[in-house]
This record gives sequence, structure tokens and C-alpha cells, in this order.
Amino acid sequence: MKLGMIGLGKMGFHLVLNLLEHGHEVVAHDMNPRSVAGAAEKGAIPAASLEELVAALETPRFIWVMVPAGAPLRSVVDQLPPLLEPGDIVIDGGNSHYKNSLELSEQLAAQGIRFLDVGTSGGVEGAEQGGCFMIGGEEEAFRLMEPIFRDIAVSDGYLYAGPSGSGHFLKMVHNGIEYGMMQAIAEGFELLDKSPYDYDFEQVARVWSNGSVIRSWLMELTQNAFAKDPKLEGIHGVMHSSGEGKWTVETALDLQANAPVIAMSLFMRYRSLQEDTFHGKVVAALRNEFGGHAVESAN
Amino acid sequence: MKLGMIGLGKMGFHLVLNLLEHGHEVVAHDMNPRSVAGAAEKGAIPAASLEELVAALETPRFIWVMVPAGAPLRSVVDQLPPLLEPGDIVIDGGNSHYKNSLELSEQLAAQGIRFLDVGTSGGVEGAEQGGCFMIGGEEEAFRLMEPIFRDIAVSDGYLYAGPSGSGHFLKMVHNGIEYGMMQAIAEGFELLDKSPYDYDFEQVARVWSNGSVIRSWLMELTQNAFAKDPKLEGIHGVMHSSGEGKWTVETALDLQANAPVIAMSLFMRYRSLQEDTFHGKVVAALRNEFGGHAVESAN
Amino acid sequence: MKLGMIGLGKMGFHLVLNLLEHGHEVVAHDMNPRSVAGAAEKGAIPAASLEELVAALETPRFIWVMVPAGAPLRSVVDQLPPLLEPGDIVIDGGNSHYKNSLELSEQLAAQGIRFLDVGTSGGVEGAEQGGCFMIGGEEEAFRLMEPIFRDIAVSDGYLYAGPSGSGHFLKMVHNGIEYGMMQAIAEGFELLDKSPYDYDFEQVARVWSNGSVIRSWLMELTQNAFAKDPKLEGIHGVMHSSGEGKWTVETALDLQANAPVIAMSLFMRYRSLQEDTFHGKVVAALRNEFGGHAVESAN
Amino acid sequence: MKLGMIGLGKMGFHLVLNLLEHGHEVVAHDMNPRSVAGAAEKGAIPAASLEELVAALETPRFIWVMVPAGAPLRSVVDQLPPLLEPGDIVIDGGNSHYKNSLELSEQLAAQGIRFLDVGTSGGVEGAEQGGCFMIGGEEEAFRLMEPIFRDIAVSDGYLYAGPSGSGHFLKMVHNGIEYGMMQAIAEGFELLDKSPYDYDFEQVARVWSNGSVIRSWLMELTQNAFAKDPKLEGIHGVMHSSGEGKWTVETALDLQANAPVIAMSLFMRYRSLQEDTFHGKVVAALRNEFGGHAVESAN
Repeated sequence: MKLGMIGLGKMGFHLVLNLLEHGHEVVAHDMNPRSVAGAAEKGAIPAASLEELVAALETPRFIWVMVPAGAPLRSVVDQLPPLLEPGDIVIDGGNSHYKNSLELSEQLAAQGIRFLDVGTSGGVEGAEQGGCFMIGGEEEAFRLMEPIFRDIAVSDGYLYAGPSGSGHFLKMVHNGIEYGMMQAIAEGFELLDKSPYDYDFEQVARVWSNGSVIRSWLMELTQNAFAKDPKLEGIHGVMHSSGEGKWTVETALDLQANAPVIAMSLFMRYRSLQEDTFHGKVVAALRNEFGGHAVESAN
Repeated sequence: MKLGMIGLGKMGFHLVLNLLEHGHEVVAHDMNPRSVAGAAEKGAIPAASLEELVAALETPRFIWVMVPAGAPLRSVVDQLPPLLEPGDIVIDGGNSHYKNSLELSEQLAAQGIRFLDVGTSGGVEGAEQGGCFMIGGEEEAFRLMEPIFRDIAVSDGYLYAGPSGSGHFLKMVHNGIEYGMMQAIAEGFELLDKSPYDYDFEQVARVWSNGSVIRSWLMELTQNAFAKDPKLEGIHGVMHSSGEGKWTVETALDLQANAPVIAMSLFMRYRSLQEDTFHGKVVAALRNEFGGHAVESAN
Repeated sequence: MKLGMIGLGKMGFHLVLNLLEHGHEVVAHDMNPRSVAGAAEKGAIPAASLEELVAALETPRFIWVMVPAGAPLRSVVDQLPPLLEPGDIVIDGGNSHYKNSLELSEQLAAQGIRFLDVGTSGGVEGAEQGGCFMIGGEEEAFRLMEPIFRDIAVSDGYLYAGPSGSGHFLKMVHNGIEYGMMQAIAEGFELLDKSPYDYDFEQVARVWSNGSVIRSWLMELTQNAFAKDPKLEGIHGVMHSSGEGKWTVETALDLQANAPVIAMSLFMRYRSLQEDTFHGKVVAALRNEFGGHAVESAN
Repeated sequence: MKLGMIGLGKMGFHLVLNLLEHGHEVVAHDMNPRSVAGAAEKGAIPAASLEELVAALETPRFIWVMVPAGAPLRSVVDQLPPLLEPGDIVIDGGNSHYKNSLELSEQLAAQGIRFLDVGTSGGVEGAEQGGCFMIGGEEEAFRLMEPIFRDIAVSDGYLYAGPSGSGHFLKMVHNGIEYGMMQAIAEGFELLDKSPYDYDFEQVARVWSNGSVIRSWLMELTQNAFAKDPKLEGIHGVMHSSGEGKWTVETALDLQANAPVIAMSLFMRYRSLQEDTFHGKVVAALRNEFGGHAVESAN
């Protein structure tokens, strides 16, 4: 099949490789001409503009947009409709908030354009070698695209999840679970690190990756990380986050769902961004006030 | 090799099957004669008593004790030393507290008996078809036993972790991680359950098991559970615990390690054991006191 | 001074009593004519409509709106501007989100109307006998109103906090702290309830209210609650919430601030609204899958 | 009445002042002769040794031990019994674990000596000017001592809580609540610190101390702290803990009671002791492994 790819960053570029590998034709565009050239070198049809990309596709067009959520996505999606025809399909494969996907879907539907919100998991490796795709939107549009999903996903690695927004909602929750799992693994190794034993962490992650209840891809990645740096001495424990964990907690608050573990995973990430905390200053000051406990001076 | 197995419960019995399958000779004993007969049917050498079991083994004897931690283990281990000779090896394959294993190791060492504390993971299925074994104790004793571990573990699924206690410590932390991972997965599905979408949970667990960052054995088991009961309507959400999560949190407190996620996983389990809570009553009463908010009557 | 009060619910009515007690004239309006009559009986000037209320005040008018946040507030505030003149002052004394207060302030400012967002604490008792007021908005408007705040607050119980929104922001955070304090007290009594000792909870709350580090109004209210029902046997531990705790957590997420205690207080409230949980079902099902642990049937 | 005081540290010394102020005779001993001299200057009868102290008291003797829990307490209590007579009363006024108090009580009872475990709250100020006392042990012993408690406590500030251990259990839970309250207050101010508004924290603590739902001694102390250092710039936010919060969480685990807020308060204290965390390193490494997210180098 033939498909347009807009956005040739880390994820988009590896998806292009994956699609080409499976014999699909890809018309590739990015704001950066070098990225377009890079994709062309691998066999994609280069498109210098959105107009060129649209013109190179047959109707109904399949256009996969793989750009950062928010303003970059907005900018692409605002330019597309005038170029498209009813029945064309636009896919947002990025990490958009499901409510935005729902809105976008309605906007595009008003112009007869079909929309799929696709959550993608599996990292860069998954994008190229077979990832996991959670797909929301009009079911008929999904059916037309299904051969592509079947090819780029690992076996059994795609799901038509339901109406618009359901793909990105699923991806959001997936990331919330990911936060919790990562923090759980990390707390475990912190315990080992402070334990009276001198464990070989790479070997521990290795044995836990084989036959244990907690075997998982994340544990295999933990083994890889320790293989490179046995005590992670070169790494500063600052835990950034890209927003989906926050959305998950916000959604839990809205739905009055229980999410203490996901929430605490997120708070520990925020905590890691700070060297000192104001709440710590207040508690230290209070202990001094009532008990005369000495405070440490800020340097 | 030849090995004695004391304790033919769910785990012990399946380990015996695993050992026999790999061509080892197993002398099997349990307080329940029927369990002994059951093992004998499968090819084990039955032993009606500890004495008989010990007599049927050659020195240095390998004796795997697979009974519940605490009093049952204590009872077996108190009877064994007079029957054994220096150099014999006793394995505690149960879920003992690492401090108890450390103590036991010292007691047995005083009588010349060697001790291995072995944490076992992988569930019943793992016990029979290949599990994950975390082994602490004297390294030389481990080397003598290694061919057995190699056979009963999945490939790469055993680790000599260090001195006495290190095997059970590792298993304890493993279970702490398990609590956190399970709660993270469970919170995710609670969000889906309360979401505006009507997800097919089995399919969600299936797609997350294939190619996603959170793919794991627990996610596969989640798929199995939903395959049996699509909305888990037949299951009451009471989450029992067997003590190792608690030990993990206690150890975190002792080591001043961070374990918010593991701790919250445990507290949510305790919470699930209660229909109503006293803390809830206090908060409801307080809201009534200061704000005149109505309280709900207890039945 | 002379002031209009719109909204004669629990809080509004007691504020009217408080104002009258201090010799102020109050023009009182409510959608419910009986409430207006009730206020009139206590000495307020009744107003059957907003128009009547506005007409009864001198410029610059002081109009205190004490209705629920959201739609009810919106409805009042949409009707007021055409009736008012530049320089008039509108006060929102309810529990509005600070961002809404900021917006409202700008809208009214465009019409020359001044706005104060006033967070009120101290409960019903405080409204009548002297409460705590956190005031945001134009400082000059505050200065004009200050004699009123001085009278209705307890000594030292009002603060001009800063520009628009800062009053309601402060009230929101106040409520977040309140959630945490209440949950902390409640957890303490749950521990006592499960302890091996048979404490007299009223006496415990009494002694903790006198001389201890944790003495507080909430502890005194705890004593009152136990005086009425020594073991709170008549109260169902369902903990409702009115939204400000949620806003506090959402704001913490937006500001990347640490708020684990406030967040957990909120999650425990949500948890109390459920008899059974989906996350509990998932964990129970998983324990059954890997360990063969029995699940309890949902009835 | 006449009473012996062993241990003239911060708390013991101020208790002596309090007792003298109320007309009691105090025989004072400390391992440090200077402390004894200091107490003598204030009017206490100096005792150079335990023997001297015991000899200076009439039977039944009242001996208040105010030394750190654990080894120091142990050392005093091991020396006392040979010097005492049946019917004498020993008070442990320190922060001992309630289980230790229970044991100690039994040991002393075997020698006919009566024991009271007394939890003390109110800080140094409370010790001198009137504190809060939670008293466990034999009720008759308490009755004999009650006039003393009445004098040194603030009005209504003492409670006979029940049998041995119940005083220290109550104090432990009190401290757990204290941890939660302090963290709640501290999280609130962290939110204000990160807010878009420029609050005067001293004024905020002042207004919250007057008429609000969260008014409390801790809020007054917060005001004091900000009066000294408006933004706490001179204080490093390291939150030490003296063990009772940890005991509270451990006890919650033992009793399967819910204590998420107290537990999180404690974990945030532990977190504050670390500049970098191992769990943070693991999460950062994992994000790099699956998503190619850059890690920050440890310097």
C-alpha cells in the first residue's frame, strides 16, 4: 500500500524503515529537508511540502502524522484539510491527549476527513522492528488501514480499541502503568543497593528476566543498563517525564479512580528534579521550633 | 544426582516432577502419607519419615526443605541436625525472612551442616517447567548443587547471589517489585473500567503483551484472567498478601530506602480487606463537625 | 457600612448574622423567598430581586456573592454588570477555582467593576462568630472593604493576599492542607482502634487538644465527634469531597510540586466511595493466575 | 510531693523547673555533674549517684527517668531495682517503643516495682510551662502520682490511658499524626512557593492561625519560623526523624491498618536525606534504554 508520513524524527523515521521493509510505498515529508533526504536514501519518495506529499498519494489517502503533540501537530493538521478530499484518512501517531484527539476527529469529520488516533509503544526499536499500536477512530477507516498495522506491528501487536480518542486514552494509561512498573523495579534495586549484600545488579536483572513472576521487557532493559554501567555511577537520578503520566493521574482524579501507585511514581519524578525542597525547609523549621532540633544551613 | 525433598505441597510436588523429568533421583517425604504416595507414583522414592529420607541419601546429602516459613520450617530444621553429618547440605526453598535464614545458617554451620537459602519464583508452573532460583549461602555448597539448579531452572534462571540470606533477601525484594507491578497494572485497568470507552480488556491485555514497553508475564496472566472472566465480575477485589511485601516495606524503613510505590501497593491490599474503615469514619465525622456536611449512617 | 448579600445558604445566612451583629446594614437576596424572609426577620433589608438589591445600595456598591461555585455563581455574575456602575465592588466568597476568579476579574474589570475573590474558612461557626478570610483582587477595593473584613473575622483573621485569584488559590491550598491533616488524624485513630489497647477516644482527643504538638481545632472537633458517638459506630466511613482537594492535587501536578500526602488523602476519599474496586479484582485474579491463590467470589 | 529525676537533658531539666515551680521537691541526678549542679542552682536537691538519689527519697519512691530510649534507658533501669523496694514507682518519660515498655513493666513487676510509661508532648516549652502527658501502667500507681501530673500538665493535659505500654503507644501514634500534619502544612507552602503569586508566608501562616479550619499549634510555629526567615532561605530542607514515625508505620503494617499519609510523610523525610537516589538512576537509565531519552551525567 501507499502511505504518506509527515514527521521524520526518531519515531517517524524508524516507522518509515519498517514500512519500506514490508514493501509499502512511503511518501515522506519533514520540515527539515535533510530528514526528507535521509528517508529518500532508504527508499521513500521525498516530498518537499505537504502539497507535494498529498499530490503523490491516491485517494483515499493514508497520511500518518508523526510529530510532537500540541502545537506541532496542530500546525500540520490545520494545513491539511484544504489539500485533502472526503474519505481521506489522517492518522495521529503521536502522544496526544485523548480529548484533543476527540476534538480533532470532530473537526476533520466536519470536512469529511477520517481520523485515527494511534498510540504507539515499543520505543524506537519497536517502531522499526515491530511495535504495539492502539487504534481509535472510525472502524471502517481502521479496516482500510489494517494491512499496514498488521505489517508494522509485532505479531498480535495492534488493536482496534474503539471510537475516537480510545487509542490515545489507552496509550496514556499504558504509560501510567509504565511509570508504576519502572518505579517498582527502581525501588527494588534501591533496596538492593542499600542492603547488607553486595549484589551484581546485572546478574540480578538477568535472573529476574528468566522464569520469575516479574520478568518483563523493562527487566531486560534493566539488565542492559547495568551491563553498560554496573552501579549506574555515571547517571544522575533525575527522572524527567513527558506528560502522559501526569495526564493519567489527572484522568484518575476526574474519574475518581484509585491511582496511588501511578501518582507516587510521578511525584517521585518531580522530586528528583529538585535538589532541595520547600516542604523540607518547612518541616525542618518546624522541628526546630517545637523540639529545638538543629536545622542544617542552606549553603 | 540424588536429592531429598521434604514438603510435597503445591510447590514441592511440582519441583519433584521437574527433578524427575531431568533424570534426578528424589527421595520424597511429607507429613501427609498420601502426598508421599502421590510423589512415589510419579517415580520418587518414598520416605515415611525424616530418618528414612536421610538414610536413603548418600553423603554429602542434598536435602531440599519446601515447607511454609516459620513454625513448619523450624520444626523440620530442628529435627534434622542429629540425623545429618558434617558436609551435608540443607536447602530452604520457601519464603523465609532473610534474617531467619541468616540465623539458621549460623546454627547449622555450628554443627558442620551447610545451608542454602533459595528464593523461588515463577509460580507453580515455574516449579514444574522451569523456574527462577535466587541462591544464597556458602558458595562451595552451591557449586555442588549447581547441576540441579541448572536443570530445574529455565535457561539463565538461577543465580548464586552471595552469602547466607542473600537469596531470600532477593526473593523478598522480587516480591516487593511484584506488588508494585501488579498494582500499577491494576490501577491502569481500573482507569479503563471507569473510562468513557468500552474496552475489551482481554484484547487490551493481549495487545499490551505484544511489542509494548509494559509487556511482561504479569500482562500475559492478565490476559488469561480476562479470557476467563471478561469483566472479572465473579471476583471480589480482596487482595490478600503473604507477608513478603510487608517485609519489603519494613526493610525499606530499616534501610531508609525510598519505597513509596511498594508501600502504597501494600496499603491498598490492607484497605481491600476492610468493608468500612475507622479513618473514614473519623474524616466523615470531622467534615460534619466543621462544615455541617451530612454523614451517612452505618447500616 | 452597607452591603448586599446574594445567597443565603448555610454560609451566607450566618455571614449576614455576623454582619448585623457588628452593626452593618445588609440588603439580602436569595432565589428562595423564604431565605430572604428569614434574613429579614434577623434584621436584614429584604430584596426580592437582584435589581432590588442593587437599587438599595449606595455607590460604590459592595455586593457579596455567596453561592456555589460554577453554574450558580456564573448565573449571578452574568446578570449583575448591566445593573452596576463603574467602581462597584463584587465579592465572590465561595469556593471558586482561582483561574475562574482570575477570568471573572478580567471580565468585570472590562466593565469598570471591581472584584475581590475571598476564600472563607472556619466553617459555619466561623461565618457567624468570626472566620478567616483570604482576599485577592484590587488592593484599593480591599481597603474600602477592610472595615467589614475586620469586623467579621476573628482577630487577625483576614489577609489581603495579592492580585486576583490569590484569595481563592490560598483557600484551595488551605483545603489541601486540611485534607492531609484530617487524614493524618484519622489514620492515628485507626491505629488506636486496631491497637491492643482499649482507648477512650474522646479522652485521647481531649488530651491531645491540651498541650500537645498536634493540638488544633480539628483535634477539638475530633473530641466533639467522639463525645457524641464514642466509637463512631453510627457513621459510615464514606468520605465525600467538594473539589478543592482535587484542585490542589491538579495544581501540584501543574506546578511540579510535591504533594504526596495531599494526593493520598484524596485517593483514600475516592476509595471510600467504592465497596469493591476493579484494581482489587485484577490483583486478586493475578495472584490466582501465578500462584494458585484462591479468589473470593463476588456475591 | 517529692520525686527523683534521672536525666537532666533538655526535657528533663525543664521538667525539673516545672516541678519546682509547682512546689514539689526534686532530687536530681545526671551522669554529667554539671547538669546536676545546674539543677541544684534552680532549687533541686543534687544527687551524685543513683544510690544517693534513691536514698534521698521516701517510700514509695517516685523516680522519673528522662533519658534517651534504648541503651541509655536500659542502663539506668538495670541499675535501679537492687536499690529499690517493692511499691516504688519508676516512670519512663522518654520516647520508648511501647513493646519495650511492656517488657520493662513485666521485669520490674517481678521485683515488686511499679512502672509507668509516660509519653510527653509539647516540646521543650511544654516541659517547662505545661505539657501533655499520656500515661500507661498500673492504675493505682498513676493515682498516687496524679497530683504531680496535674501540676506539670496544662489544664486537661494528662490522661491515664490504660495498662503498660498504652502511654508510649499513644505517644507513638501522636508522633505519626504529627508527621502527617507537618508534611501536609509543608506541601501547602511548597505549592504557595511555586504558585504564580508572591505570598507573604508569615502573613499566610498568621491568617491560617486565626479562625481557619487548619488553625493549630503547628501553624503558629510555622508563623514563627517565617517571622525569622521569610522564605526559609537559610534552611536546608533535610528532614531528620527520631524513630517514632517509623514505629508508627511498622505498627500500621503489623495491625494491617491504613496509614498511607503517615508512611508517605516518612518516605519524604528519608528522600530528603539523599542528594541523589538509586531509584532515580534506574528510572533514568530505563527511559534511555527504551526511548533514547538522554540521561544526565552524575558529576
